[in-house]
Amino acid sequence: VNGAEALIRTLVSGGVDTCFMNPGTSEIHFVAALDRVSGMRGIPCLFEGVASGAADGYARMAGKPACTLFHLGPGLSNALANLHNAYRAHVPLVNIAGDHATYHRRFDAPLTSDIEAIVRPYSAFVRTPQNASEVSQACADAIAAAHSGRGQIATLILPADAAWSETGEPNAPVGVAKLSLPDASAWDEAAALLRNGAPTALLLGPHLIQGEALVMAGRIAAATGAKLLAPFAFGRMQRGVGLPAVERIPYVTADAIVKLAGLKQIILIGAGVPAAFFAHPDRPSLLLPQDCKVHELARVHDDCEGALEALADALGARQTPFAKASYVKTAAPHGAITLQGLAEAVAATLPEQAIVIDESITSGRGMMAATQSAVPHDWLVNTGGSIGIGLPLAVGAAVACPERPVLCLEADGSALYTLQALWTAAREKLRITTIVFANRAYAILKGELAALGDNPGPRALEMLDIGRPDIDFVALSKALGIPATRATTLDELVAALHRGLESGAPNLIEVPL
Amino acid sequence: VNGAEALIRTLVSGGVDTCFMNPGTSEIHFVAALDRVSGMRGIPCLFEGVASGAADGYARMAGKPACTLFHLGPGLSNALANLHNAYRAHVPLVNIAGDHATYHRRFDAPLTSDIEAIVRPYSAFVRTPQNASEVSQACADAIAAAHSGRGQIATLILPADAAWSETGEPNAPVGVAKLSLPDASAWDEAAALLRNGAPTALLLGPHLIQGEALVMAGRIAAATGAKLLAPFAFGRMQRGVGLPAVERIPYVTADAIVKLAGLKQIILIGAGVPAAFFAHPDRPSLLLPQDCKVHELARVHDDCEGALEALADALGARQTPFAKASYVKTAAPHGAITLQGLAEAVAATLPEQAIVIDESITSGRGMMAATQSAVPHDWLVNTGGSIGIGLPLAVGAAVACPERPVLCLEADGSALYTLQALWTAAREKLRITTIVFANRAYAILKGELAALGDNPGPRALEMLDIGRPDIDFVALSKALGIPATRATTLDELVAALHRGLESGAPNLIEVPL
Repeated sequence: VNGAEALIRTLVSGGVDTCFMNPGTSEIHFVAALDRVSGMRGIPCLFEGVASGAADGYARMAGKPACTLFHLGPGLSNALANLHNAYRAHVPLVNIAGDHATYHRRFDAPLTSDIEAIVRPYSAFVRTPQNASEVSQACADAIAAAHSGRGQIATLILPADAAWSETGEPNAPVGVAKLSLPDASAWDEAAALLRNGAPTALLLGPHLIQGEALVMAGRIAAATGAKLLAPFAFGRMQRGVGLPAVERIPYVTADAIVKLAGLKQIILIGAGVPAAFFAHPDRPSLLLPQDCKVHELARVHDDCEGALEALADALGARQTPFAKASYVKTAAPHGAITLQGLAEAVAATLPEQAIVIDESITSGRGMMAATQSAVPHDWLVNTGGSIGIGLPLAVGAAVACPERPVLCLEADGSALYTLQALWTAAREKLRITTIVFANRAYAILKGELAALGDNPGPRALEMLDIGRPDIDFVALSKALGIPATRATTLDELVAALHRGLESGAPNLIEVPL
Repeated sequence: VNGAEALIRTLVSGGVDTCFMNPGTSEIHFVAALDRVSGMRGIPCLFEGVASGAADGYARMAGKPACTLFHLGPGLSNALANLHNAYRAHVPLVNIAGDHATYHRRFDAPLTSDIEAIVRPYSAFVRTPQNASEVSQACADAIAAAHSGRGQIATLILPADAAWSETGEPNAPVGVAKLSLPDASAWDEAAALLRNGAPTALLLGPHLIQGEALVMAGRIAAATGAKLLAPFAFGRMQRGVGLPAVERIPYVTADAIVKLAGLKQIILIGAGVPAAFFAHPDRPSLLLPQDCKVHELARVHDDCEGALEALADALGARQTPFAKASYVKTAAPHGAITLQGLAEAVAATLPEQAIVIDESITSGRGMMAATQSAVPHDWLVNTGGSIGIGLPLAVGAAVACPERPVLCLEADGSALYTLQALWTAAREKLRITTIVFANRAYAILKGELAALGDNPGPRALEMLDIGRPDIDFVALSKALGIPATRATTLDELVAALHRGLESGAPNLIEVPL
């Protein structure tokens, strides 16, 4: 086998069987190997940020890494913004970037760059095997690194000669390090705080707002009266009827401060001290009341689930019934588009087990409240603040869960960073309904500009305006192979959502605001 | 003034008066300052790679830097691929990226990252002023760095509190270091080689294939019989009737070897030893005949024009008449689309002083030969091999030279990385005619795959196919605000080119292949 074949065999035997890719000449041996090694599904993307965002969405839903394939340093560069988001989502991900043949690097051909330096800010593991015989072990180590500490980005740089040269059968085993449980004093202290009667919240990290951990957190909340909180940015939350409700810390600093007011104690489990998304001259960076005591039960890379169970045991809450959200049917809204009406339209049409991707920014602030008591579903948001994640996340989630409907709530400004994702969704016939909220502006920035106090000037406003010309998302969608419609009333939106979500195929709805 | 105003004033007084931008909250004070400080033209882009590519195109044509404005690490990440190309084009460019307020960084809010590390692989100068009073000097140093060594990328990272805090009037001067001339022995030796009668070429670096330097190279060639060569990747070549003809080293390794066969001596002036774009298992990395003597007259960051003049003086060639390409009228082609016909259509319709942006890849290999004897024009190509540069380069060139028609020759695969550039061209009403050659494939990679020798497998071919669904570039263009048409014959193409180039406004022609 050659190095590229050894790589794919090692990936597949390590459970990595999906590759979101945008290859070039230096990756051609990897591409060719797809026909000689079985078990790897290649999914072409027209831009690398689509691939990295899709790998993130895949990992959030599949709970295991996908791999990517990029063309040297520039290809990896285009992937970085969504790798930043994936890094903040604490997902496992195996990047693969080709490089020049080792002996060719010294000639400084146009595509030469320091690939390791480019990816290191967003990669917990970086390795460049120097020949074909080093590929399999490097790959196994990358998979192990991706799985370790609850989920990390691992990057493998594959020189072209390491890909094309012959080597032996790959047999490198993937050894994943066990997560470490914090010291018992951590949960004993947390239990003592939860018993002292002061207003207390549990701030739940990325892997605790889903599955058994979410239920366990609900039992602790029920037993102690603690509030369950999630950071504003989280990877995946399971919610809806039958599950404990978790409150999200708001984006707007003033709202977040109100939400956390009165808390005397907060227990961090895989989450950091709540801080403002951005600093402002006249607002604090930290969101908690000044007299709120902070206790860290576990860090994000620890065994947070284990710590949560130990805490439940310490409280005798292992079997305490948890408060379940009960189903509330939302009536389909009618008439003119309003933000509240948009949220109700989503709540009224959300199918059971839907996966909601929420990059709706200013248009979607009522969405989570409106769907709190809807049918069970997953909610995925932007974790790192780098916009342009929504459409790619939807692709990855739909690839991971082909039987589930995906609803992608997308702002127009954000959609335009990674619009190419629509083509991959069309080609792979993914079950994604996308709503584009078209307010023709970076509306969140207009708010920031207005908040500066002076009347915003015309030249500044022009920089935040994405109209003139208005962009036709229905036409963009059709041009990329996805049927699309425009909804100008809530009735049209509800009808389009029903049609789209039931179609089992990709579709898009533009909502002009 | 606040730090943001001081920054813009320093930029404008340093000759940097155009900003291609995609700002966010941390850059809002820069945006607001556009109305309080005069002289800076802000040009909004919907994706950062458009802004960095446009700044490159602007610098190639204006001969001075534009600035950019990006949103923290992820914004800068999206700009990197075209910064890679700009880095290889040796253009001056001043990047500006916002960052969190200095005191906010330690809270690790979602958008926090190591911005300096992200940009350093593609930036010769990186500075982060820590408060408003440091901004003006840091900016002046960045402008000087951008101008030094013939053109470099300089990056300024602006913490939000350095932008919003008050400071004194900016007065930092921009001091640009003089280029250094190589030692006289370098041109004496070159002159001796040029007199010895052996077949010799001058390989001309990025700033020598335009203006006075190109004419001087032509005089030396006429006086000595040397051949004038340019690397495959170059930033800007002036060509057409009345100018010395420069031969470009071909992309395909075998063709390049044939082009250089028989050379006994090569004199490098701001260019490296010719190497293959990619290594291949059975082809050499270096392209020159093994017995070809290499002499380096000057390095790219040296005073290459001065060295060239000194060489002309040493040869007594300062006034030697140079061989001029004479005008050859190309007849408009008719009938079915062929690659030769496409090249003839461009040659037949090219307006005087057109700026041609060539990212046509496999569809455009005959373009330069067909236009060698056309009316005078500039030719700009991809310098770093990171595709997705064409549409942004066209925006930047058109902003720099609003009176000149820009013809952008674009491959469909490449167009899809930075398609958002069309919207900026529409908004700014830029005089750009774009041809998209739609072969529905990464055709260059299909060639590489076929060259591996085995019959390409279906799964591999699928990764290189960008049809299924076919992408409708006419609809994409219209959706982004640019009128478009489809040319299915050479007659239609010629008619559309005439109309488009004469319209004085942006327009697009899709040519299905």
